[in-house]
Amino acid sequence: MKVDGRWRRTIELAPDGRSVIVLDQAVLPYAIAWMQLATVRDVEIAIRDMHIRGAPLIGVTAAYGVAIAMHADPTSLDAAIATLAATRPTAINLRWALDLAHARLAPLRPADRAQAAFALAAKLADDDVAACEAIGALGADVIAKLHRDRPVNVLTHCNAGWVATVDWGTVTAPIFMAHEMGIPVHVWVDETRPRNQGLLTAWELASHGVPHTLVVDNAGGHLMQHKKVDLVMVGADRVTRRGDVCNKIGTYLKALAARDNGVPFYACVPSPTIDWTIEDGVEEIPIEERDPEEVRNVRGLDADGKFTSVAIATAGTPVANPAFDVTPHDLVTGIITEKGIARASERELLKFWPRDQRSKAYLT
Amino acid sequence: MKVDGRWRRTIELAPDGRSVIVLDQAVLPYAIAWMQLATVRDVEIAIRDMHIRGAPLIGVTAAYGVAIAMHADPTSLDAAIATLAATRPTAINLRWALDLAHARLAPLRPADRAQAAFALAAKLADDDVAACEAIGALGADVIAKLHRDRPVNVLTHCNAGWVATVDWGTVTAPIFMAHEMGIPVHVWVDETRPRNQGLLTAWELASHGVPHTLVVDNAGGHLMQHKKVDLVMVGADRVTRRGDVCNKIGTYLKALAARDNGVPFYACVPSPTIDWTIEDGVEEIPIEERDPEEVRNVRGLDADGKFTSVAIATAGTPVANPAFDVTPHDLVTGIITEKGIARASERELLKFWPRDQRSKAYLT
Repeated sequence: MKVDGRWRRTIELAPDGRSVIVLDQAVLPYAIAWMQLATVRDVEIAIRDMHIRGAPLIGVTAAYGVAIAMHADPTSLDAAIATLAATRPTAINLRWALDLAHARLAPLRPADRAQAAFALAAKLADDDVAACEAIGALGADVIAKLHRDRPVNVLTHCNAGWVATVDWGTVTAPIFMAHEMGIPVHVWVDETRPRNQGLLTAWELASHGVPHTLVVDNAGGHLMQHKKVDLVMVGADRVTRRGDVCNKIGTYLKALAARDNGVPFYACVPSPTIDWTIEDGVEEIPIEERDPEEVRNVRGLDADGKFTSVAIATAGTPVANPAFDVTPHDLVTGIITEKGIARASERELLKFWPRDQRSKAYLT
Repeated sequence: MKVDGRWRRTIELAPDGRSVIVLDQAVLPYAIAWMQLATVRDVEIAIRDMHIRGAPLIGVTAAYGVAIAMHADPTSLDAAIATLAATRPTAINLRWALDLAHARLAPLRPADRAQAAFALAAKLADDDVAACEAIGALGADVIAKLHRDRPVNVLTHCNAGWVATVDWGTVTAPIFMAHEMGIPVHVWVDETRPRNQGLLTAWELASHGVPHTLVVDNAGGHLMQHKKVDLVMVGADRVTRRGDVCNKIGTYLKALAARDNGVPFYACVPSPTIDWTIEDGVEEIPIEERDPEEVRNVRGLDADGKFTSVAIATAGTPVANPAFDVTPHDLVTGIITEKGIARASERELLKFWPRDQRSKAYLT
């Protein structure tokens, strides 16, 4: 994606070849700042304090963290992995990347570890980019086929974008690629309360030069009723083996409106997002109940341009904050993955992934 | 409704018999402040600067404004009406109440006007209370019939509450009355972005002692999927003659989720809300596009408890802000009015209102 007019990845090897430059997501979308991570401690803080976010990106960053540690002290492999694993204990990609690094590096002589570790991190980064590019090419084709006499209007919810990956994003990849192909695209960006990740999506689209409009989450149904949406594209935290889509809270409401108005609804996901152990997403996926303060408080810039938050509801107001919902497969037109576009049914998904090729981790 | 443990109306005649006490809605839900309006100028400011809001309440307040003016100078009728009419030029109830006041008072001798004007204002206030009470009794019965072995869970969107009326509200009337009848009720309160009127609803419920939980607008579908909602009750700005419901943006999404999950969906409205001139709400009702700043900025209390606002999106972010949407009649279980509960069809609505009884104004 372009940032300040230049193609950038969210994580890049620094010119010194032994540190990385990453975009600081903690200040987005209010400022663009790049951080250099030169020690395992830098990487630890960047992941722990969420300067780095997004499942694939966390995994790649951790792999670079191991490489940075191996360059400093090739005998510190176990210590570095333990340190990095503790930054986000529940992040499955983090665990997966660190396990992979351990398996590759532990058998090597210490003197060979740094080079192998940087090569592994670079490979994981390139794999993520390749997966997003493949999703992007397939999704751009979906967008291209809907192009008539006006820009194709895509509605998206939350951020399944560049910032969560090494490049392209998942939902943003088709949009960026269609835009690069010269297909006029306009994106309706759901604000995505309570955490307002839509603002990240809006920032990405603005950065890359894609026309877009921010709307509150309530607006999508009305826009679809009035034929202002040609397709809905969302990401997913998990897709069940029959194609139920677990994604940020509110996605299900947009899927209902899409069906009611004949608008196609796609999930764009790397294949490790498919959880082959689960069939019925509504019944089987436990939904995380998050901190009520996320609902009670809204963050933004005050009159002086200072990043701050305001309480919209008093501390005494009872609040529920379910973070995800499940869109049943019958509302889903298709699942766009790096391998192809599958209809949302177990039969179709199995066609793409025979039993022995099904991933066990979420890293692409 | 109870405020600070005492039954209050939003507008009450002051002990002096020639001024009124009103709740200042400009500071809700962050503070409870009552204002005394003793001159026509006070009333003008209260309506113009939105210390007073809600269609029925604006009409009643304007009628009291005329009465206050007549007490001060009974020859100022035309001037007072012109002043008050200019406060909210598009408010149909305001116009209706002032026209009614003019028709009643102009023929009288100036000496008789003040008493007649206060009587008229009191009558309009009582009529509004009676309409809300009738809606409340019918709606409470709907709630009572859904009572099984747990509190009845009502989901509501926006504020069709006490603060918009003289007492009870429209959607809140059934809830308050069910609560008073001893039926356990719990209310899911949609935040209602961008203006967050759900916070007013939450404040009302807390003030009256009704259990409730604030949620973001995205959450309702998930709650319904998991059987946590027994019915949806919303207000309306306009209902078409076949029962399409035009209400705050996002209502349509909740109606879709209600249908998908077998949850009954009711609109609670005084009958003048029915617009007999319109059949197809989606096609025929123009939707107000409001100031993008409402989306870009969120108001609340800062760390010092000071009322302020933060910009969540930069001034350069393109924003659309449609204020209402239309829920087609086939998603509506019933329209609860002061006359009875009608199914959402022209045939049914006509049964309650023969041609000659259809109101032309929105005042109850």
